Amino acid sequence: MIMKRVALLGSTGSIGRQTLEVIENLGSDYRVVALTAKSNRELLEKQVRRFNPELAVLSDEGAAAALKRSLSGSGCRVEGGAKGQITAARWPGADLTVVALVGFSGFYPTLAALEAGKVVALANKEALVVGGELLARRGLLDPEQLLPLDSEHSAIRQCLGGASPGGIERIWLTASGGPFLDWDEQRLARASPAEALAHPNWRMGPKITIDSATLMNKGFELIEAHWLFGVPLEKITVVIHPQSIVHSAVEFVDGSLIAQLGPPDMRLPIQYALSFPERRTNPWPRFSLFDAALTFGEPDEARFPCLELARRALRAGGTAPACLNAANEVAVENFLKGALAFTGIPRLLTGILKEHQVIPRPEPPQLEEADRWARRRAGELLNERTDGSGHC
Amino acid sequence: MIMKRVALLGSTGSIGRQTLEVIENLGSDYRVVALTAKSNRELLEKQVRRFNPELAVLSDEGAAAALKRSLSGSGCRVEGGAKGQITAARWPGADLTVVALVGFSGFYPTLAALEAGKVVALANKEALVVGGELLARRGLLDPEQLLPLDSEHSAIRQCLGGASPGGIERIWLTASGGPFLDWDEQRLARASPAEALAHPNWRMGPKITIDSATLMNKGFELIEAHWLFGVPLEKITVVIHPQSIVHSAVEFVDGSLIAQLGPPDMRLPIQYALSFPERRTNPWPRFSLFDAALTFGEPDEARFPCLELARRALRAGGTAPACLNAANEVAVENFLKGALAFTGIPRLLTGILKEHQVIPRPEPPQLEEADRWARRRAGELLNERTDGSGHC
Repeated sequence: MIMKRVALLGSTGSIGRQTLEVIENLGSDYRVVALTAKSNRELLEKQVRRFNPELAVLSDEGAAAALKRSLSGSGCRVEGGAKGQITAARWPGADLTVVALVGFSGFYPTLAALEAGKVVALANKEALVVGGELLARRGLLDPEQLLPLDSEHSAIRQCLGGASPGGIERIWLTASGGPFLDWDEQRLARASPAEALAHPNWRMGPKITIDSATLMNKGFELIEAHWLFGVPLEKITVVIHPQSIVHSAVEFVDGSLIAQLGPPDMRLPIQYALSFPERRTNPWPRFSLFDAALTFGEPDEARFPCLELARRALRAGGTAPACLNAANEVAVENFLKGALAFTGIPRLLTGILKEHQVIPRPEPPQLEEADRWARRRAGELLNERTDGSGHC
Repeated sequence: MIMKRVALLGSTGSIGRQTLEVIENLGSDYRVVALTAKSNRELLEKQVRRFNPELAVLSDEGAAAALKRSLSGSGCRVEGGAKGQITAARWPGADLTVVALVGFSGFYPTLAALEAGKVVALANKEALVVGGELLARRGLLDPEQLLPLDSEHSAIRQCLGGASPGGIERIWLTASGGPFLDWDEQRLARASPAEALAHPNWRMGPKITIDSATLMNKGFELIEAHWLFGVPLEKITVVIHPQSIVHSAVEFVDGSLIAQLGPPDMRLPIQYALSFPERRTNPWPRFSLFDAALTFGEPDEARFPCLELARRALRAGGTAPACLNAANEVAVENFLKGALAFTGIPRLLTGILKEHQVIPRPEPPQLEEADRWARRRAGELLNERTDGSGHC
């Protein structure tokens, strides 16, 4: 096969590190040409010494300056700031840009890489949740160019096998249900951060783990699936599947359902995107169908209102998903530091979405403004209720 | 889409009747141009009056003559005998030949249709079990030309989505396990025909229902999968799945597994083959993932030795599968009339396979001869043990 040259944005995070492991396993057909991180100079330097990219970027300008000194004479160019991330996203030597940055700042390099004609393997949720409508408007959602790294969306992609959106009756988006699947309303109201962080199947960062417990993560994935596969919201159904073995399924108009299964291991969807359209072998643990007992059920949307909040934001369109995303970040932060009850998260978001004045067809400045407004407003609402009881 | 003109061989059997139902539902894009049956003149005549084919065939020459009289002046040509089936298989007005004939006699029309360049939708197991090696030798196993109607092989085909055999790590061929899944050896020895005919999930004819109870049906499907998908036997694994919802799965070299699910309804794989490569809508009951609880397990090959008998026959090659198929027909007949115990079926087949002198690279006459020899020898072995105790 042809050599694939990879720019990896966000190489020091969980997805970034696993992407490098996948690339090492794929062998000499793959070459890392750019690596970027936010501020973890130490790890990025190690990665640079191992993979010898042409470019290394740290968003933190001070850390970038320090890295530049340590790497002087290595032949690796070093840049800093948000501008450096854009340079990496468009790096002329790269064929494939992996965007594993966290937060809305990942949207700009995603946009830049797509506009520069790179194939983009996307782990950054915000690029689609917040910026999906904008990317669609600019015609940048070509399924051959934009490959999802999420296990669910990778599964859907694998199930589609080139079928057109017209043949899809329904996408079944699986959700483990998180640690609180069977908790009643009262117990949920008292759920602690430690309890919410104990995800049954996946090891992930704290923010996404809390989003899994509230099902907001699944709500965001509904929005992502809508943009990635061009399927209306009514045709995307969340199904609880506690074992996290079926990563999602597609039901076709003839009643046939194609599902993708595998161990809960992010290296598999990462490798699928990197080696697409080929499949390559690897030495990681296999899943045996002999051991499988798979159960499925309907989510209780009364106990987990974040699903409907995500749908509401997508239907409202424009800046509404940006507002929901930003307010959710503030809510999760406050839950993690004990300043908001678990059930206060959707209550806070409901209030903010109601207040938000949606701007249709937003460009990046309007998305930024909605993000800032939602953060400010969430802070105000939280301050109005400083008793920490979570009666938000 | 372009009109598809269908020759349906075996239109009065279960698969044939369901094929006509599928064609009616598909509507005006489909036209039936030939219908054939073995001897059921009454039903064939009704079908002819409804679908107005250009040709109608009955294998039974007497019945064909009677049909010719009843249809005189209708514009439908009537033929009789095995020759008539071949005429239908190659019918110039057909694009697609559905072979739903039962038994080894279905091999010849299958061969004729493939050689005439028709797309063949195949429900006749023997064509592949007995004749797979011959079809492979003649280069007639092109996956674009030969579409399986079996639910399992249709599932595998759907899971492959155009992937090459080289990307396949393993095919998981699902088996309900039949009515005797949990029966111990002693109870199996006393199993009655009525008990064996009570299949938990599928309503089928008596022969295939008994083959499901012994797992010989799954053994034959192993052989079929080998020929249809070009995958070696070691990469095809039978997995017990009592709910018959997952119709089979393909595991790829990267560890990802794609499964096809649906209600146990033969109209779905039939429609898939008829409308391939498109998928078309239909009004039949849908399967909801919300209701699913799917379990899987390893087959107990000590209690169900027919799986290994099928593998042994395929490895022996040449005329061995023909011998196994013919001896199995005799064994099942004798079990159904109470002349052979359930556990006597694999014992009889083991003995016959051991005795059989394999002829490599057989042509049709050698396959016929192996078939005749196995039937005769099975009869002899059964007569040597006329106590009916099944100690064969």
